[in-house]
Amino acid sequence: MSEISSILLDNAVNEFSKLPGIGRKTALRMVLHLLRQSEADVSAFSNAMIDLKQGIHYCKVCHNISDSDVCAICADASRDDKTICVVENIKDVMSIENTQQYKGLYHVLGGVISPMNGVGPADLEIASLVERVQQGGIEELIFALSPTMEGDTTCFYISRRLQNTSLKLTVLARGVAVGDELEYADEVTLGRSIVNRMPFDYNK
Amino acid sequence: MSEISSILLDNAVNEFSKLPGIGRKTALRMVLHLLRQSEADVSAFSNAMIDLKQGIHYCKVCHNISDSDVCAICADASRDDKTICVVENIKDVMSIENTQQYKGLYHVLGGVISPMNGVGPADLEIASLVERVQQGGIEELIFALSPTMEGDTTCFYISRRLQNTSLKLTVLARGVAVGDELEYADEVTLGRSIVNRMPFDYNK
Repeated sequence: MSEISSILLDNAVNEFSKLPGIGRKTALRMVLHLLRQSEADVSAFSNAMIDLKQGIHYCKVCHNISDSDVCAICADASRDDKTICVVENIKDVMSIENTQQYKGLYHVLGGVISPMNGVGPADLEIASLVERVQQGGIEELIFALSPTMEGDTTCFYISRRLQNTSLKLTVLARGVAVGDELEYADEVTLGRSIVNRMPFDYNK
Repeated sequence: MSEISSILLDNAVNEFSKLPGIGRKTALRMVLHLLRQSEADVSAFSNAMIDLKQGIHYCKVCHNISDSDVCAICADASRDDKTICVVENIKDVMSIENTQQYKGLYHVLGGVISPMNGVGPADLEIASLVERVQQGGIEELIFALSPTMEGDTTCFYISRRLQNTSLKLTVLARGVAVGDELEYADEVTLGRSIVNRMPFDYNK
C-alpha cells in the first residue's frame, strides 16, 4: 500500500501485519483504531507488551508462564502433587485448566520431538521432567500431547527414559468428540473408538 | 479466562482484546506470538504505536494523515489542484489513491452528518472546506461519501453552503458493481442503474 501518506502510520501497520493472521488491511484497521484512542490508552497498550516481555517468568518447576519463580499452580497446596500432566505449551495448560476437570500439576515441554523441524529431545524440558520424577513423590504421568506422529514420538521417548520407574503412564482418551455427528468422524478416530469401546454407564 | 497464570500476560491479552474484531482467544494468540519474539522486536512493535500517536500530524489543508503540516498529496505540484474529492475519512483517501484513477486533491471531513450519533456539521471539517473553496482556484468538488442517508445528507448540506459559487458539484457514479452478477444486485441499485444508463462504448 504505497498510498499510505505517513511513514509513522506505515511503520505501525508493518509492525501489526507481522502478527499471525493479520494482513495489511486488518493491520490498518487496528492502527486507525488505536489512533482514535487517547495517548494514555495507546501507552497502556504498548507498555503492556513491553512489561510482559521484560517481566515475564517461567515457573522453574513446570515451565508454565508465571509472574514469579514458581507458578500459581505449582504453589497451590490444594492441588494433587502426585500427578503430572505433560503438555506441549502453555496454551495447553490453559485449555486443560478451562475444563476444571484436572487438579494435578503440569509439565510444559515447550514443544514436541520433531526431526523435520530440527527439534530434538535436548531442545525440550524432558531432562527436567525426568529429574522431577526421580526426586520421588510422583505416581502418575498423563501424556496430554497432540495425537500426531510428533506427539506419539515424544510420548514414546519419555516413556523409554522413565522405564525403570514404577510410574503409572496414561494418555488422554481418544475417540469421537462429544457432540460430534458420527458421520463426520474420521475413519481412524472412529476405528479406534470401536476398538477402545468403554462400558456404557447410565449415570454419565 | 481466569486460568491465565500471569497478571502481565492477562494485562497484555486485555489490551489486545480491546482492538476491533479481536476476541480473547485471538488476543492470546497474538500475545504469545509477541512473547516468542526478541525483546528488540517487541520494543519495535510497541514503539511504533507510541511514535505514531505522539508524532502524527494531520494535513492543515485537507486533514489527511501526514508526517508534516502539509500532506504529500497536497504538496505534490503534479496533481490537479482545481479538483477536490470530499471523503469521510483517511481510509477513503487510501482506497481512492489505490485505484490510481484520481489525480486531484482531497478534503477529509472526519465523518458524516448523523443526528442519530450526535454528529452535526460543526463536528466536521465543513467550515474549512467552504473556506478552501472561497479562496478560489477550485473548479470541481467530487462527493465521494457513502451512498447512505447520512452521506446524502452531508452532500446536500455542503451543496447548500456552496450554492453561491460557480463550483461544479459531482458525485461518484452509482450502479451495478463491476464483476457483480446482476441477479445479486439489490433493487435500488439496479433501478438507479437503469435510470442512469450510460451510452455503450466499444472502447471501454
